[in-house]
Amino acid sequence: MSKIAIVGSGLIGQCWSMMFARAKHNVVIYDINPEQIEIALSSIRKQLEGLPPVLLEGQTVDEIAARVSAAKDLKDALNGAIYVQECCPESVNLKRMIFADLDKVADDKVILASSSSCIVPSSFTEELTHRSQCIVAHPVNPPHFIPLVELVPSPWTKPEVVDQTRALMTSLGQAPVTLKKEVNGFILNRLQYALLMEAFRCVEDGVCSPEDCDTAVSQGLGLRWAFMGPFETIDLNAPEGVKDYCERYGENITACCKEQDALGARAMKGSATADVIHAAMRKAVPADTLVQRKKWRDNRLAALFLHKRSMLEQEKAAN
Amino acid sequence: MSKIAIVGSGLIGQCWSMMFARAKHNVVIYDINPEQIEIALSSIRKQLEGLPPVLLEGQTVDEIAARVSAAKDLKDALNGAIYVQECCPESVNLKRMIFADLDKVADDKVILASSSSCIVPSSFTEELTHRSQCIVAHPVNPPHFIPLVELVPSPWTKPEVVDQTRALMTSLGQAPVTLKKEVNGFILNRLQYALLMEAFRCVEDGVCSPEDCDTAVSQGLGLRWAFMGPFETIDLNAPEGVKDYCERYGENITACCKEQDALGARAMKGSATADVIHAAMRKAVPADTLVQRKKWRDNRLAALFLHKRSMLEQEKAAN
Repeated sequence: MSKIAIVGSGLIGQCWSMMFARAKHNVVIYDINPEQIEIALSSIRKQLEGLPPVLLEGQTVDEIAARVSAAKDLKDALNGAIYVQECCPESVNLKRMIFADLDKVADDKVILASSSSCIVPSSFTEELTHRSQCIVAHPVNPPHFIPLVELVPSPWTKPEVVDQTRALMTSLGQAPVTLKKEVNGFILNRLQYALLMEAFRCVEDGVCSPEDCDTAVSQGLGLRWAFMGPFETIDLNAPEGVKDYCERYGENITACCKEQDALGARAMKGSATADVIHAAMRKAVPADTLVQRKKWRDNRLAALFLHKRSMLEQEKAAN
Repeated sequence: MSKIAIVGSGLIGQCWSMMFARAKHNVVIYDINPEQIEIALSSIRKQLEGLPPVLLEGQTVDEIAARVSAAKDLKDALNGAIYVQECCPESVNLKRMIFADLDKVADDKVILASSSSCIVPSSFTEELTHRSQCIVAHPVNPPHFIPLVELVPSPWTKPEVVDQTRALMTSLGQAPVTLKKEVNGFILNRLQYALLMEAFRCVEDGVCSPEDCDTAVSQGLGLRWAFMGPFETIDLNAPEGVKDYCERYGENITACCKEQDALGARAMKGSATADVIHAAMRKAVPADTLVQRKKWRDNRLAALFLHKRSMLEQEKAAN
């Protein structure tokens, strides 16, 4: 049971608080706006009450909520903390200011992690005394139903900081991945953008409709990827595994990808194709039902999380 | 209740037979090897017995199996059939021979569909009298748990053949998508290859391990894609939908994809990176357990199919 500091009490800070508290850590929340912390504390309680009971891990809402409290200032928040999770808006200037403040009150051991979804840590930690203790730990929203956390060290992050953060994330039940170097988009978005751009081209070049692109994933490709990655998928699609797969199909895949490179990355912003895709989406989900559809998505993510959890339990019980 | 002819009685022919028979069509199977048909008929019965009972759609195994029979020759198979599904090995020469044979016994109405996974229909139908009735209808394996069917017309396929095939697939409970023109890889593989190549580059360029690439998808990206496509995913990730998303993030996505283009499509066949990925996969799943792992995958696909089906039913009941 260690002390964890959450800096920034918006939605993602609340989720992190909930997950650390559920894993029996003492969580203190700091925000520049103290009123916001009070709102966050009651919001965390509501979120805990809304969780499927099995996800309370045998604890009551009261027990978990009691582990989360407000810090009066940043020094108070970091005092005795082993780990800080910064959860502020995605702005490099803001991150620079916050990490400079953290740097002043940090001891030599605490890990200073940022929830940044695309800003690389070297861009806001270079000048800091404690820069070797800084890392990005990027969650996916909602993190209690999407376990992936991307860990991005800067060139000066100590290896043990990476290892300790990875172990901490695993202990929360999350699924950490480690980048060996800083890259634009980290892993998740690099993979997402590659597929998204091909889907965008398929629409722009008249290969198929936006709806059919979506169906190809939601009723096809995405079903395997819900529980296996791209490499395990191909590993199980050739008799002798991935090497065999590359021997059989590699030449054609490389040729197809060269063709895609030649077709080129398209401008998405302000494009006519974005309008076409938008019109298709609004036909299926009118603008005034978008909020409802997002709830549907969150319900589906929750249900899928529980489904996968129960599959794992069945598989363990069978062995 | 119409007559459907299945040409080729291997695994995919058996799956199609099962699905057409379940939807109350009379199915006749033709194979150049008559003994193979007998094996297929008993295999179809076994597969039906192995299906989750809810997927028999209120029928008994006997009722469904009774609708599938052997044809004595191709003429017999096509006599009165409204639709032929060719399910032979993936060879353009073989497809040419089979479609030439089908052409001789086809009337002017029957749809001649190929299960081809990558051979475009123009490459084996151009010379045929009935070429305007030919189309590719590519299923994903196993089709009774992965609903996607890719419909690929040739330039001379009649539009009504596309429409009728799409309606027939929908009536089976499948999820058809229509290509407006022939492209290498159709839709599913074009999207898969784009993501796969980026994952391959991430390993080759030392961004992350093969295992972490897989985790980024199976514990992150793939969870949304299990029930939403790439466009709906981004549509729900900005307040005002996909157009808003493109305004906010489009420039960065295009820049990231240009960078990926510049990094280029890599050779997968015979590459050292394929060896690295293969070694990682064999560490998790030793070669002698690959068959078992494929069963695990098939169980997971079946369970996910049932999960999604029950979610849909719950949602319908709630409305």
